[in-house]
Amino acid sequence: MALMTGKEYEESLKKMKMRIFLFGEEMETAVGNPILQPSINSIKATYDLAHMPEYEDLMTATSNITGEKINRFTHIHQSAEDLVKKVKMQRLLGQKTAACFQRCVGMDAFNAVYSTTYEVDQKCGTNYHENFRKFAAYVQENDLVVDGAMTDTKGDRSLAPSKQADPDLYLHVVERRPDGIVVRGAKAHQTGIVNSHEVLVMPTVAMGPDDKDYAVSFAVPLDSEGLVMVVGRQSCDTRKTENTTLDVGNDVYGGMEALTVFDNVFVPNDRIFLNGETEFAGMLVERFAGYHRQSYGGCKVGVGDVLIGATALAAEYNGAEKASHIKDKLIEMTHLNETLYCCGIACSSEGTETASGNYLIDLMLANVCKQNVTRFPYEIARLAQDIAGGLMVTLPSEKDINHPVAGAYIKKYFAGTSTTPIENRFKIMRLIENLTMGTAAVGYLTESLHGAGSPQAQRVVISRQSNMPGKKALAKAIVHIED
Amino acid sequence: MALMTGKEYEESLKKMKMRIFLFGEEMETAVGNPILQPSINSIKATYDLAHMPEYEDLMTATSNITGEKINRFTHIHQSAEDLVKKVKMQRLLGQKTAACFQRCVGMDAFNAVYSTTYEVDQKCGTNYHENFRKFAAYVQENDLVVDGAMTDTKGDRSLAPSKQADPDLYLHVVERRPDGIVVRGAKAHQTGIVNSHEVLVMPTVAMGPDDKDYAVSFAVPLDSEGLVMVVGRQSCDTRKTENTTLDVGNDVYGGMEALTVFDNVFVPNDRIFLNGETEFAGMLVERFAGYHRQSYGGCKVGVGDVLIGATALAAEYNGAEKASHIKDKLIEMTHLNETLYCCGIACSSEGTETASGNYLIDLMLANVCKQNVTRFPYEIARLAQDIAGGLMVTLPSEKDINHPVAGAYIKKYFAGTSTTPIENRFKIMRLIENLTMGTAAVGYLTESLHGAGSPQAQRVVISRQSNMPGKKALAKAIVHIED
Amino acid sequence: MALMTGKEYEESLKKMKMRIFLFGEEMETAVGNPILQPSINSIKATYDLAHMPEYEDLMTATSNITGEKINRFTHIHQSAEDLVKKVKMQRLLGQKTAACFQRCVGMDAFNAVYSTTYEVDQKCGTNYHENFRKFAAYVQENDLVVDGAMTDTKGDRSLAPSKQADPDLYLHVVERRPDGIVVRGAKAHQTGIVNSHEVLVMPTVAMGPDDKDYAVSFAVPLDSEGLVMVVGRQSCDTRKTENTTLDVGNDVYGGMEALTVFDNVFVPNDRIFLNGETEFAGMLVERFAGYHRQSYGGCKVGVGDVLIGATALAAEYNGAEKASHIKDKLIEMTHLNETLYCCGIACSSEGTETASGNYLIDLMLANVCKQNVTRFPYEIARLAQDIAGGLMVTLPSEKDINHPVAGAYIKKYFAGTSTTPIENRFKIMRLIENLTMGTAAVGYLTESLHGAGSPQAQRVVISRQSNMPGKKALAKAIVHIED
Amino acid sequence: MALMTGKEYEESLKKMKMRIFLFGEEMETAVGNPILQPSINSIKATYDLAHMPEYEDLMTATSNITGEKINRFTHIHQSAEDLVKKVKMQRLLGQKTAACFQRCVGMDAFNAVYSTTYEVDQKCGTNYHENFRKFAAYVQENDLVVDGAMTDTKGDRSLAPSKQADPDLYLHVVERRPDGIVVRGAKAHQTGIVNSHEVLVMPTVAMGPDDKDYAVSFAVPLDSEGLVMVVGRQSCDTRKTENTTLDVGNDVYGGMEALTVFDNVFVPNDRIFLNGETEFAGMLVERFAGYHRQSYGGCKVGVGDVLIGATALAAEYNGAEKASHIKDKLIEMTHLNETLYCCGIACSSEGTETASGNYLIDLMLANVCKQNVTRFPYEIARLAQDIAGGLMVTLPSEKDINHPVAGAYIKKYFAGTSTTPIENRFKIMRLIENLTMGTAAVGYLTESLHGAGSPQAQRVVISRQSNMPGKKALAKAIVHIED
Repeated sequence: MALMTGKEYEESLKKMKMRIFLFGEEMETAVGNPILQPSINSIKATYDLAHMPEYEDLMTATSNITGEKINRFTHIHQSAEDLVKKVKMQRLLGQKTAACFQRCVGMDAFNAVYSTTYEVDQKCGTNYHENFRKFAAYVQENDLVVDGAMTDTKGDRSLAPSKQADPDLYLHVVERRPDGIVVRGAKAHQTGIVNSHEVLVMPTVAMGPDDKDYAVSFAVPLDSEGLVMVVGRQSCDTRKTENTTLDVGNDVYGGMEALTVFDNVFVPNDRIFLNGETEFAGMLVERFAGYHRQSYGGCKVGVGDVLIGATALAAEYNGAEKASHIKDKLIEMTHLNETLYCCGIACSSEGTETASGNYLIDLMLANVCKQNVTRFPYEIARLAQDIAGGLMVTLPSEKDINHPVAGAYIKKYFAGTSTTPIENRFKIMRLIENLTMGTAAVGYLTESLHGAGSPQAQRVVISRQSNMPGKKALAKAIVHIED
Repeated sequence: MALMTGKEYEESLKKMKMRIFLFGEEMETAVGNPILQPSINSIKATYDLAHMPEYEDLMTATSNITGEKINRFTHIHQSAEDLVKKVKMQRLLGQKTAACFQRCVGMDAFNAVYSTTYEVDQKCGTNYHENFRKFAAYVQENDLVVDGAMTDTKGDRSLAPSKQADPDLYLHVVERRPDGIVVRGAKAHQTGIVNSHEVLVMPTVAMGPDDKDYAVSFAVPLDSEGLVMVVGRQSCDTRKTENTTLDVGNDVYGGMEALTVFDNVFVPNDRIFLNGETEFAGMLVERFAGYHRQSYGGCKVGVGDVLIGATALAAEYNGAEKASHIKDKLIEMTHLNETLYCCGIACSSEGTETASGNYLIDLMLANVCKQNVTRFPYEIARLAQDIAGGLMVTLPSEKDINHPVAGAYIKKYFAGTSTTPIENRFKIMRLIENLTMGTAAVGYLTESLHGAGSPQAQRVVISRQSNMPGKKALAKAIVHIED
Repeated sequence: MALMTGKEYEESLKKMKMRIFLFGEEMETAVGNPILQPSINSIKATYDLAHMPEYEDLMTATSNITGEKINRFTHIHQSAEDLVKKVKMQRLLGQKTAACFQRCVGMDAFNAVYSTTYEVDQKCGTNYHENFRKFAAYVQENDLVVDGAMTDTKGDRSLAPSKQADPDLYLHVVERRPDGIVVRGAKAHQTGIVNSHEVLVMPTVAMGPDDKDYAVSFAVPLDSEGLVMVVGRQSCDTRKTENTTLDVGNDVYGGMEALTVFDNVFVPNDRIFLNGETEFAGMLVERFAGYHRQSYGGCKVGVGDVLIGATALAAEYNGAEKASHIKDKLIEMTHLNETLYCCGIACSSEGTETASGNYLIDLMLANVCKQNVTRFPYEIARLAQDIAGGLMVTLPSEKDINHPVAGAYIKKYFAGTSTTPIENRFKIMRLIENLTMGTAAVGYLTESLHGAGSPQAQRVVISRQSNMPGKKALAKAIVHIED
Repeated sequence: MALMTGKEYEESLKKMKMRIFLFGEEMETAVGNPILQPSINSIKATYDLAHMPEYEDLMTATSNITGEKINRFTHIHQSAEDLVKKVKMQRLLGQKTAACFQRCVGMDAFNAVYSTTYEVDQKCGTNYHENFRKFAAYVQENDLVVDGAMTDTKGDRSLAPSKQADPDLYLHVVERRPDGIVVRGAKAHQTGIVNSHEVLVMPTVAMGPDDKDYAVSFAVPLDSEGLVMVVGRQSCDTRKTENTTLDVGNDVYGGMEALTVFDNVFVPNDRIFLNGETEFAGMLVERFAGYHRQSYGGCKVGVGDVLIGATALAAEYNGAEKASHIKDKLIEMTHLNETLYCCGIACSSEGTETASGNYLIDLMLANVCKQNVTRFPYEIARLAQDIAGGLMVTLPSEKDINHPVAGAYIKKYFAGTSTTPIENRFKIMRLIENLTMGTAAVGYLTESLHGAGSPQAQRVVISRQSNMPGKKALAKAIVHIED
């Protein structure tokens, strides 16, 4: 049964017994928790849209492994067109959830591990690619959510993994057994981890020969023994526990992040995809980061679409939509958002085949894409706040709005144009707050900065990919400089 | 006794019986309420610093009315140097509170009403200036907090005050009595209103002859009958009610805003400063806005100093402070912040005397100042988040950090460089979150956009002040065009 | 003989007898004129590269009309891949010439007229498409340069074409004869017109029913009777007449623009592609502008490559290439340049088939592309000047450098690092000057602003293409607003 | 006679016998040379305006040395108000000349040398301050133009002055005689040198103990034996030799730069202001740079005023001045220009007294000022080109406009709105070209980048002045971190 429904996905999640900490309390499942449920709902959308005929082309694909129709989030890209469709699917999900829907990181890890394991095997005679294909087939057949996990907490950044005061600051193999390995360490900022089935671990940096135990990639279920998650706080998170709908801004969808600890977790042999081949750690990192930097040219654009729409509504409800400066700001927001989309599309359509047969994005353009994502959503958000007006941050609470005395004053005095129900104006204010300062701002802004690597990481790749000797040669040719 | 202490101020506040709504509940005082107390604490700083010898020159002045030493926040500026000291005092308070300290709006209203009433009296033979001097003397002698109130809720923005469907959408006189007037309406987004003693009301736009009842300025105590405040929500507001200190980021200082309703409030004759002289509404608005746009070149710079310092600490605690891109970003933050300061200083030192004898800022430069404030803090905040790293939005709650199991993992894995206690790193992360997404972001970002008028309002003044015919004449002279 | 060499092209040009004014003198040919020859040389590159095997895939295509191998500049795009190759060809030419190579405007006019004539014929029963295919076949078979001509001089911009004081301010039909039409008017800013064989004229704006005589499209040879060109001045143009090579910066390639006057020019019937069908003027404008806005995502990127390379050389010759701020600025230049490329690629790969069978770019993304082109080259140029240093604008003339006394001082004192011949440093300074202030700045900067429509023109299209109702619906769905 | 007229200044210049190279030819005076005369004219304006009563307050001051009324360009600033007036004088001159008027660099050198020599004498028991006061009195009494000279050509930037392959790459003492010293070396990019009377030389960097011979400051007349100037080319320079007025854009005023060689120039003892006290080289550089970075907050603002006025006229002549996007761009240009002015004013009004009694600007704010000057004029220029339209770079030459055939076409087709003589439109186009690409762009753009130090130089000072430990302490206080 290759395509689950959202409901089935939620049921499948309930059956797992995880260890999740939140606000100092431990729980076994994220399902039903008011802080975490919106994150589950976002993922549910990735299942439910796959059943809708109008989205079938974007949301599903045919597996190169099983030959079956699968959710595109579990697909190994078979063409540049697949890469383009991936970006369009992400824009769609961003539009439908106005949140981080978390399933991309696994898809990107999938494709990076797929091609890298092939090349490791070619070079080292290992069997990782076959292991990974089996794992991928299992995920595709059961339509699972896989969380890709890369970012170690890194301790002292000036030291290599094997040189840290505490050897666990980078995840590593602590024991090798005939049937598998035992690993210890942690991955930070794991988006969607509490509502995933499996975690696919990768190393976080290029490594030297001393870092053998740290050059490890594998997948395990999230209810594996020794696996513990500690959920991070988001701006405005507890509004979700107030039993109101208005104040949360987006009362259905959201995201979450957690510190994910591997406290002596066992990994069986057939789930190992890298184990000591340090020279391939860099390739895996670069490919995963490349795919994930492409992703932001889709998902953030979709969220941007919602924010632009909300802002246009705010202008309309404020009776200001005809002012030329308002129209111009909406154009600027759109221009910036579509520039991101151009980058997402371009690095995809320029994708090329790897030795393993799947398709890799254009690395330069994917890094350019992400670099723009570290800038433009902040300016889009600023313009949204500009148009929304101060009410966005001074609107009283839903409880006040429903209070007989306070509520009467609020409704009397915040009346806008007569054609708009006042509640609509309030809803849109809260949505813009949510996206620019609240829970969703974690995804739309800060994650746009740091997800898939902080800005400087892209600049390093842009520099490396810039072929400066070639550019110098062009200039020399124009002015006839011969070396 | 002209200079109260912070403690005395708080006591004085407790004696007043206000009507305050918050989260659907009514209370009589803001004192002690966890959401509102930080706002009181910010004001307390304006009192306590005035007693410290090292800040005496900035924090106090000699009243031109009483001849006594007074808090500069109640001062009528007597020179351009006074205007410069005002900006420096505001930078100081921003540095000490990392928040909006709210007492500026009254100071700015004071100076605008002072000079405008003088000119109204000259033209119309009224007695407003004398009324105002008496009120000012009372405020100075008792060292009170006055909240300036300008922004009506405005309803349909395409209609004049007197043409609105609901006549109360702009505050107006509803009854004229021998001993005074009765007013009805509301002022939105009132910063610090629940912890002020008096409110000084001004009209919100230039007005035409039909708007006579709306051209009204006056002052009343905040426990006047008919006065009701409904507090607005801020991002992350309820963290202050969680009985923790870490998660709030700034556990002492903050700000607040409220919808302030005047439901048939009586104003005695000697507290009236404008009453029907519509042709002066525009002057009052322009001067108040001018002073308040100057203010942002001080207070936001001070808050910026804290954010830059916090960001430098984050870099240090992350072990990244020596990276050239980090150093360059800190320089850029500083450069932008000091550019704002230049604007605050320049519009002050170029201030000129009004007919009444007090000093008015340079209008062009004050509007240029505010226009930059609508942009640069957003970029400073983005750079702060860049340097801080993703942990700023994924750090678990204080309750998790204190939990025996979860906390142990957190402390083990988020260890940075060995010389830094891990708690310090967490504190700085939360402070940056507070300033860029949390309660303080309302003041540092959104208020920077909309406080003292939204960006477009400054552009209108810049255009009006640009002397374009003069500039055209300069160009014509260079190329010998004669008209 | 479908592919001419550059030499053959130049010979073919010499045979034409044009009317060209330059510096108050009239001449019959541009060939050999020192001001105009560089423009001819740029076009020659479009011929010569088509004969080089390594560029064959980009520079040539198979005609859908003749079935022959042709220069891609005369091609009717048959696929999205063709659109992508077009952009790559333009980047290549920009890299090779560091100038505007002028042949794009004809290619873009070709494809716009091709699809529009088809739709006009479908609707109006006319025969324009067949006329155009014949013309296209002639151009392809003879490998001609066609200059697309759109921009009328427009007079009073608030009036429609037919309402102008002088009816000729928009080009129009002044006489209809059995064998053809006679036209009068002028097209401004015509790039490469003196070195083209044919001019393909299109209307410049959408038109109303009164503008029938102005809705005209046709092609004529540039030596037609009544056709007069007045060449515009470029910054630093006369350096090309000084008989030196260093001071011009780029001594081989360049571009030119001219006011092109049609003073009662006769157009035979089979060269008419629109004649009074006012409702199609807007479509033709939009499609041509769309293609041409795509073009800038290729050509300017190629020129940008040269400028980046020259800047990196300047840093190297100054001994500063290892400074972190220099490296970072080169990354920023590259990032901006590749962002433009992303836009060029994306609007191409998202191209779609028209009713006529050729491919049209994605209109939104092409306009986003051009909008970025109106900004980024200016910042790239600023960064180039930053790195180059002041010598770029204070270097003495080649005559001084060759003077025994002055030259000795110059060479002694402007010695950089010992490994670089000082002449190389001077050459690179002049190249950067040329691209940022000199003749090439006309193309790289000002044309980037205004070519294919000024910035505001793109904003209008972006607004129209933004599907704001759809975006509003997305926001409404998130917060459950039902209309 | 303390105040010369412009005419007298020009006469005084003629009497000097300098060695000037230009286009490979040597001449004895700049007076009357078409390339150099505009530079002389700019300086003449600094004389003539000093005689106009309306500018007396800005243009003149009372000497602290002679007690006489002098031209402010030769003044030793006696107060912060003097610093402010200096900036206002510079804005005035920028407005009147639309060019670099070159006399600032001497004024800035004057004030830096004045205070530094005082402190050297205090520390080292030397007599430099007295020497300098005598020189200053001579300059003030004769109202001379002094060119400050700092920038050595520097050779290999990674080596100290005394370590260069060629010891002359930094100017240095080559012989010490009883009556004075002999110096050799060169200063690059000397603005206005051919039309100055004296040159005041300063070292270019902070120095170490080995650089004793390089730590030298002195003044000599520009016709001293051994002094040679080689004029640099400017964009469009030779248009000034074409005997036309339109095409030059600004036919009266301009600037110039030259490589200035000191080939064994003798300096008498009483003209020496530093001679081996290496530890004061850095102070002198920092103070001069500080003053000169302040200057740009005046002069470039004045030039910006002309460019904004010209752009507004272009919009008017194009019939586009009422379009909202045009108005908004003019506001943005004004806003950016006034932001620069804020910085110029602020660093002046915050000036403080030095040990010698003159006033020094605020170093942080002066560097912030200049840093903005490296950015905003480029954006102002881009917006000017945006509004001007493509005609700015495609307008035919004056010779064509005057040609009976070509000129008739040009005038017919470039007619704008009927109320504007077409010549006016052309004049304004050429003025905008001049300021954004032509001779004046060297001053308005590239000099804005590199004059008074390239952007990175300011960033180094901003970093040093940022008091980061103090800012960190502010953040620590907020979150209760104790060290």
